[in-house]
Amino acid sequence: MAQDKITMLHGSGGQATSELIRSVFAEAFSNEVLGQMEDSAVVPGSGTIAMTTDSFVVTPLMFPGGDIGRLAVCGTVNDLLMRGAKPMYLTCGFILEEGLEVEVLRQAVKSMAETAKEAGVLIVAGDTKVIEGNGGMYINTAGVGFIENEVDISSAKIQPGDAILVSGTMGDHHAALLGERMEIETEIKSDNAPLSEMVAALLASGLELHAMRDVTRGGLATVLKELAESSQTTFVVQDEAIPVTPQVKDFCGLLGLDPYYMGNEGKLVLILPEAEAEKAVEIIRGSRYGDGATVIGKVYGAENGNGAPGDLIAETAIGGQRRMDVLQDEGLPRIC
Amino acid sequence: MAQDKITMLHGSGGQATSELIRSVFAEAFSNEVLGQMEDSAVVPGSGTIAMTTDSFVVTPLMFPGGDIGRLAVCGTVNDLLMRGAKPMYLTCGFILEEGLEVEVLRQAVKSMAETAKEAGVLIVAGDTKVIEGNGGMYINTAGVGFIENEVDISSAKIQPGDAILVSGTMGDHHAALLGERMEIETEIKSDNAPLSEMVAALLASGLELHAMRDVTRGGLATVLKELAESSQTTFVVQDEAIPVTPQVKDFCGLLGLDPYYMGNEGKLVLILPEAEAEKAVEIIRGSRYGDGATVIGKVYGAENGNGAPGDLIAETAIGGQRRMDVLQDEGLPRIC
Repeated sequence: MAQDKITMLHGSGGQATSELIRSVFAEAFSNEVLGQMEDSAVVPGSGTIAMTTDSFVVTPLMFPGGDIGRLAVCGTVNDLLMRGAKPMYLTCGFILEEGLEVEVLRQAVKSMAETAKEAGVLIVAGDTKVIEGNGGMYINTAGVGFIENEVDISSAKIQPGDAILVSGTMGDHHAALLGERMEIETEIKSDNAPLSEMVAALLASGLELHAMRDVTRGGLATVLKELAESSQTTFVVQDEAIPVTPQVKDFCGLLGLDPYYMGNEGKLVLILPEAEAEKAVEIIRGSRYGDGATVIGKVYGAENGNGAPGDLIAETAIGGQRRMDVLQDEGLPRIC
Repeated sequence: MAQDKITMLHGSGGQATSELIRSVFAEAFSNEVLGQMEDSAVVPGSGTIAMTTDSFVVTPLMFPGGDIGRLAVCGTVNDLLMRGAKPMYLTCGFILEEGLEVEVLRQAVKSMAETAKEAGVLIVAGDTKVIEGNGGMYINTAGVGFIENEVDISSAKIQPGDAILVSGTMGDHHAALLGERMEIETEIKSDNAPLSEMVAALLASGLELHAMRDVTRGGLATVLKELAESSQTTFVVQDEAIPVTPQVKDFCGLLGLDPYYMGNEGKLVLILPEAEAEKAVEIIRGSRYGDGATVIGKVYGAENGNGAPGDLIAETAIGGQRRMDVLQDEGLPRIC
C-alpha cells in the first residue's frame, strides 16, 4: 500500500479495493479457501451446524489486553461454543471509515488471524466497505460451527437443582475499556479470549452440560436473568461468590460501577446438575482462561419460596436478598 | 416501541435492546430457528456448503425500486448462487446510527423479510449495535448455502470457445441510486433482485455451466476482467451487444458515465460452452428477472492474436478495439 490512510477509493470495488485486499487481508488470512477468490467460499459441511453473527463497534480500537480484531474473532467463536458447536468457519465484513490508518487496520487484521489460529477456525470469506467518517472501523464476523449428533445444550434443559458456575472473574473487559477511555491508569486487562479449549474439555468430559452462555454486553446479571426467564426457574446467586479481581473491585468502587452488569469477552456461565459441579470447576480450571472457575449459585423450582419462576435473586454477604433485573439503562458508560 | 428514534440505549444489551428486538425484528423475521433465542442458531447442515458475507452501506436507505433491506438479502443470496449453491440461511448484523427513525428500520426489516421469503432463505441469527452518527444504518448479511455433490462452478473452468452471457440490462441499480442522490427525475429503478429462480433453472437444465458472477460494485468490465485474469484467457465483448435500457443510456450520456463500470444488484454473467449459449439464454429469459438475457461475447485462447491471456477487449460498433481494465478510480460517483 502506497497510501497510509484509507480513502473512499478503497471501497470502489475496483483496483484500489483489490490492492487493499492483496496487501492487507490476503497475506494475514492466507488459506486455501480464501485463495479461491470467488463470490462465495465452498467448504466441507456437517449434518448439523450452528450459526451466529456479531458486529464489533468498540472504541478505542486497541485497548489493554486486546483489540477489535481479537474481539471480533472471540465474540463469534464463543457464541458458537455456547451451543456445544465446534467453531469451523468465520466470515468477516469490514466497514472502514475514511481516514483510518492502514497500519491500525493491519494490526487488527493480524490480531484476527492470530486469534483465529488459536481458536482453530478458518476465515473463509470477507468483504470491505468504506464510509465517510473519522478514521474508525467496524467489524462483523459471522460463524459456522459443527455440532455432533449427541450434543444438545440450550436454556430449555435447565432444571431445579442445577448449579450455576462462572469460568472466572467478572468485569475485566468492561473495566479495561473504561479505564482506557477515561485515561485512568490501571493494571486491568481485557479478558478477550476464545474459549475453544475450555469448551472442548467440557464436552469431552461426558458431564451433563445443560446450558452455557458467554458473559458479554449486559453482564452476568443480564445473562442469568434471561436464562432464569427462559427456563422459568429461580436463580439464586451469592454476592460473595462472584469472582472479581481486587483491581476491578477498586476500579468499580471508585466509579460506582456494579460488576454484575459489566461485560466480559472471555468468560462463560455454565449450568449443570449440582452433583457434577465440582468436576466441572476442576475441568475449567485445568483449561486455558479458566483459572478462576467457581460455583456462584443454584437453580430452584417453584417450591423454593425464594422467588417466582424467572426471578434472579442475589444474596448479600449479610444474608439479605435483592431481586435483580436485566441491564435497565445506561447505568454504565457504554463500551460497545 | 414507545420511542420513534434509535438512541444509544438500544445498543446496551439490556432491556431497551430486548424491546427493540421484540418489537421490530422478532415479528418480521419470525421463524422457529430465530425463536431459539440462544447465542447461536442450530440448523440442519449439508455435506458441502458455500459461505459468503457482504456489508451494505448504501445511501439513501430507500431508493427507486428497492431499499437497503432488499439489497442486503439479494447481495448475499446472489453470491451464494454464483457458486451453484442453494441459499439456505442468512445472519444479519445491524449497525444503527443514533437518531435513525424506527419507522425506517421497520421498513428495511420488513423488506428483508419479504425478500428472504422470495429467495427461499431463512434468517437464523441477528445482532444489533448502536453507534453515534446521523440516523444512518449499515447491514451485514452472511449466508450459508448447500452445494450438491456434482455442482462445480468456478472461474477455473472457463475455456477458450466459451460464450459470455449477461442476464439483462446493465447499470440500472447504479443509475437509480445516482438519480435519487442527485435529485434528477428519471424512471430508472434499481434491479435489486434475488436470482434464485434463474440459477435453479440453469442448474436443473443440465447445461455445462463454467462460471457465474453477479455484476455488482465495479460493474461488468471489472467482473469480466477479473474472470479473464483468473482463467488466463482473453475475453472479447461487443459494445453493441451490451444491453442497456434507453433510460439508462440517456442518463449516462447526460452525466458522461460508462455503463461498463456501473453496478447492478440483480444481474449475472454466465460463461459456458458456445454450443449451449442459446439454450442458456432461453432458460434465463424464461425465469424471473431474466427478460434481457443475451450473448455479449466470447472467450479466446492464446492463438487468437486479439490479445494476451488475461485481457478484456471491447469491440466498438465500427470495428475498433479497446483493452479494458478493472475500475480504476472514482470515474463514477460512489453508490456504496
